[in-house]
Amino acid sequence: MPIRTLIWNEYVHERENPIVKGVYPDGIHQAIATALSADDDVRTDTATLQEPEHGLTEQRLAETDVLLWWGHARHGEVSDEVADRVCRHVWAGMGLIALHSAHFSKPFKRLLGTPCNLTWREAGETERVWCADPGHPIAAGLPDRFELPQEEMYGEPFGVPAPDETVFISWFQGGEVFRSGLTWRRGAGKVFYFRPGHETYPTYHDANVQRVIANAVRWAHNPAPRRDNVEAAPNVPADQAPEPLTATGPRLHGDGQDGFR
Amino acid sequence: MPIRTLIWNEYVHERENPIVKGVYPDGIHQAIATALSADDDVRTDTATLQEPEHGLTEQRLAETDVLLWWGHARHGEVSDEVADRVCRHVWAGMGLIALHSAHFSKPFKRLLGTPCNLTWREAGETERVWCADPGHPIAAGLPDRFELPQEEMYGEPFGVPAPDETVFISWFQGGEVFRSGLTWRRGAGKVFYFRPGHETYPTYHDANVQRVIANAVRWAHNPAPRRDNVEAAPNVPADQAPEPLTATGPRLHGDGQDGFR
Amino acid sequence: MPIRTLIWNEYVHERENPIVKGVYPDGIHQAIATALSADDDVRTDTATLQEPEHGLTEQRLAETDVLLWWGHARHGEVSDEVADRVCRHVWAGMGLIALHSAHFSKPFKRLLGTPCNLTWREAGETERVWCADPGHPIAAGLPDRFELPQEEMYGEPFGVPAPDETVFISWFQGGEVFRSGLTWRRGAGKVFYFRPGHETYPTYHDANVQRVIANAVRWAHNPAPRRDNVEAAPNVPADQAPEPLTATGPRLHGDGQDGFR
Amino acid sequence: MPIRTLIWNEYVHERENPIVKGVYPDGIHQAIATALSADDDVRTDTATLQEPEHGLTEQRLAETDVLLWWGHARHGEVSDEVADRVCRHVWAGMGLIALHSAHFSKPFKRLLGTPCNLTWREAGETERVWCADPGHPIAAGLPDRFELPQEEMYGEPFGVPAPDETVFISWFQGGEVFRSGLTWRRGAGKVFYFRPGHETYPTYHDANVQRVIANAVRWAHNPAPRRDNVEAAPNVPADQAPEPLTATGPRLHGDGQDGFR
Repeated sequence: MPIRTLIWNEYVHERENPIVKGVYPDGIHQAIATALSADDDVRTDTATLQEPEHGLTEQRLAETDVLLWWGHARHGEVSDEVADRVCRHVWAGMGLIALHSAHFSKPFKRLLGTPCNLTWREAGETERVWCADPGHPIAAGLPDRFELPQEEMYGEPFGVPAPDETVFISWFQGGEVFRSGLTWRRGAGKVFYFRPGHETYPTYHDANVQRVIANAVRWAHNPAPRRDNVEAAPNVPADQAPEPLTATGPRLHGDGQDGFR
Repeated sequence: MPIRTLIWNEYVHERENPIVKGVYPDGIHQAIATALSADDDVRTDTATLQEPEHGLTEQRLAETDVLLWWGHARHGEVSDEVADRVCRHVWAGMGLIALHSAHFSKPFKRLLGTPCNLTWREAGETERVWCADPGHPIAAGLPDRFELPQEEMYGEPFGVPAPDETVFISWFQGGEVFRSGLTWRRGAGKVFYFRPGHETYPTYHDANVQRVIANAVRWAHNPAPRRDNVEAAPNVPADQAPEPLTATGPRLHGDGQDGFR
Repeated sequence: MPIRTLIWNEYVHERENPIVKGVYPDGIHQAIATALSADDDVRTDTATLQEPEHGLTEQRLAETDVLLWWGHARHGEVSDEVADRVCRHVWAGMGLIALHSAHFSKPFKRLLGTPCNLTWREAGETERVWCADPGHPIAAGLPDRFELPQEEMYGEPFGVPAPDETVFISWFQGGEVFRSGLTWRRGAGKVFYFRPGHETYPTYHDANVQRVIANAVRWAHNPAPRRDNVEAAPNVPADQAPEPLTATGPRLHGDGQDGFR
Repeated sequence: MPIRTLIWNEYVHERENPIVKGVYPDGIHQAIATALSADDDVRTDTATLQEPEHGLTEQRLAETDVLLWWGHARHGEVSDEVADRVCRHVWAGMGLIALHSAHFSKPFKRLLGTPCNLTWREAGETERVWCADPGHPIAAGLPDRFELPQEEMYGEPFGVPAPDETVFISWFQGGEVFRSGLTWRRGAGKVFYFRPGHETYPTYHDANVQRVIANAVRWAHNPAPRRDNVEAAPNVPADQAPEPLTATGPRLHGDGQDGFR
């Protein structure tokens, strides 16, 4: 059974800015979908900000194994409700791949719990992506390093929690460095952040970048069934305790009462 | 210069429930403050939900090195604005000690990015707290294990990200286990979660519990000045790049323009 | 292509001690091999301490995807050369599953870099294994908890580095707790420690234990080719630097000379 | 009471190589000791490879809070016994700061459990050290970045386990990047690796480098008493179990017998 990906794109600059339109005439989401669909084990679908509920209904997320997210200029237009829905699906087992300026997207920031800020420069400079973890599945088949001749610079410090794994680190011509490929787990869901992908450059047409994303899709896929009630805090009454137990002392909650939240 | 602690308490059950009032006549916050003030290097202050802005104004947080948080029945009454303010101060260097049912508090959940859920039982059973990391500063001076004769049970799975460190793990009479003392870093701030402390039992009068909290205050204290602009994402123009750099290619942003959010 | 497992067993007590022989007449390695071979995607092989090079020749390890290790009474008889060989294969991508008393085995201790010590008791008491990370692939298909009616107790503190993930935590009838299922990565290799498995009890005949081990085999499998020269520290001369570079200043090493070790 | 540091140096190139001798006439250890002794809260002492037991006797380590280690050409001449002794003291609470080529030292490799390899180039190029974790105590008082005009290059991948924290990342003129400041815990001991410090350049005379090392000394200091018997695995007999317990089933060990190793 193929891995079901949903590639979400804000889809603003490709429609409004002629340069970006020239690079990605059908949108970044379509460019990524085309690249991923070369893999028979991956099924692609897309959604954009403009669709009702941004195309991220409960049902659609329930049928998504790995969500890819690209956004830049309209993070604030993503509704809180949808952002929280995405987080719940990640907790329940959906993979999330946050691309480039998605470091400031609502779901990514809420899942990480930090500002996710950085320094930046738009100067068309060289980015050299180094692999810091060559045994990691996301680095499979990639060279020790690869170059993107023109990219936006993102510089440290990157305001994220210490990652579980640091897969890539970038060198920039202008003198900065950045942790470009980072992993975290949140509940049953795996999260991967991948830095390159400024919309004025043809980054998502690059074969190495496409390989990273394809690897990340496989890595982020949790084949277990989506978990139910991922926020539940069930009471285990004394008579259902694993060990024989006689309740003692005062209680705040009556039998069968929910806990406070 | 002493460590400035602020002990925040929801302060509801101690006023409304006679049993809890009997255990903590002046509130859990005062019990903790009294215990902490035995240490000359620690200065204590308290705040409660009922105060304007819950007693957590910008100025008060700016003058707090370590915030302790106890809440249970009124998590939802903490305003989003204050919850976010607490998170910003943690990112900027304030320590946070989340006590017992504060696992469901807004600041803790927002900083961790997960549901923070668990199983629970209110049966007055024995909790035995084991030290899993005896070299950790939060375990200093504590025995290998200590017992609380009556406590609420919290059981795994605890819905939090993998902690940086696991300091304590609890054994419960009814058959469950729980990671009772966990650490994370979020920006410049250190976060410690400590499980015991159900309000119907005299847990905060226990000498070992008091020792854990006092140790945690020292551990969570970041002596560096509070960081400014902790969410800033500064642009570094090409002519200010560390290396000589000539900008090339198209740009989305004009000179001096802010980045998107 | 199936996952190639090699189940290594010290194989002493099953031959020398009638009780253990009664529980595992063909050895613990055969019991595990039989259980694993129910999975068509897994190929099993076994090796024991008594074979030349303990059955762990360079070739055999090169043909092993995941090595399972059980040892107890003869850790010291494993040669340093073979222990180091196992470590090198783990760094290069071989998975390692350390079972029960293998916490004191040479490869495990060398990979973790800590004493790996613990407290223990042999009293045939109940062990209840709780899942602390239900979304983890090693927990797939398992209940929230399962019980082993008789097991040896291992108690915290467990002298290991903070694990990447805590999958299981055990509750013991006698009052202790222990982190029973822990993961780490070392180079390209994944390491899983699983606590249960004292040789006088039929633990490896338990269906839940077998499920954990089968899951762990899949989790620990790195499908990438085994990495070569996993300890190499290659020189990159100035004329092969990614950026144009003119060497300046004094040098300790002549052209083409190896670095110091 | 001041923090007692012991600065260990191989002390070979400063005696044998005129260039290195010119930069560090009294040895790298003395240059670091001089810098550290500006801090009234730090007491410095030094030891070298040439001393009996390399100057690292049991007593001397017992009186050391933080050990700094510089070695390059003679890693193999450090005796296994002394290397293991250093590891035991780290497990028991001694801090360890591994400097530059100490990535290949015996204690560092044994504590981390990985090859600790990297790529390298000796070309006198610029290294720019970026702070990736500005709230970390080791970064206190340091600028966002600092430059070393001439340094040896170390490049990723760096063959170490995922660090607890990534404090610094270096940019190299020749095009590489490297995680330059990393932390781990091993038992009660804190370990910091700091990359700069090739012996042909005046790196340890640099004020920022000195500040990093001074900060690291404070960070690595565990004020708790050195732990005893750090490898002990005590038996807890059934009659001393925390909970009432009647032993059942067969036993391998007689009363009071040690566990196997």
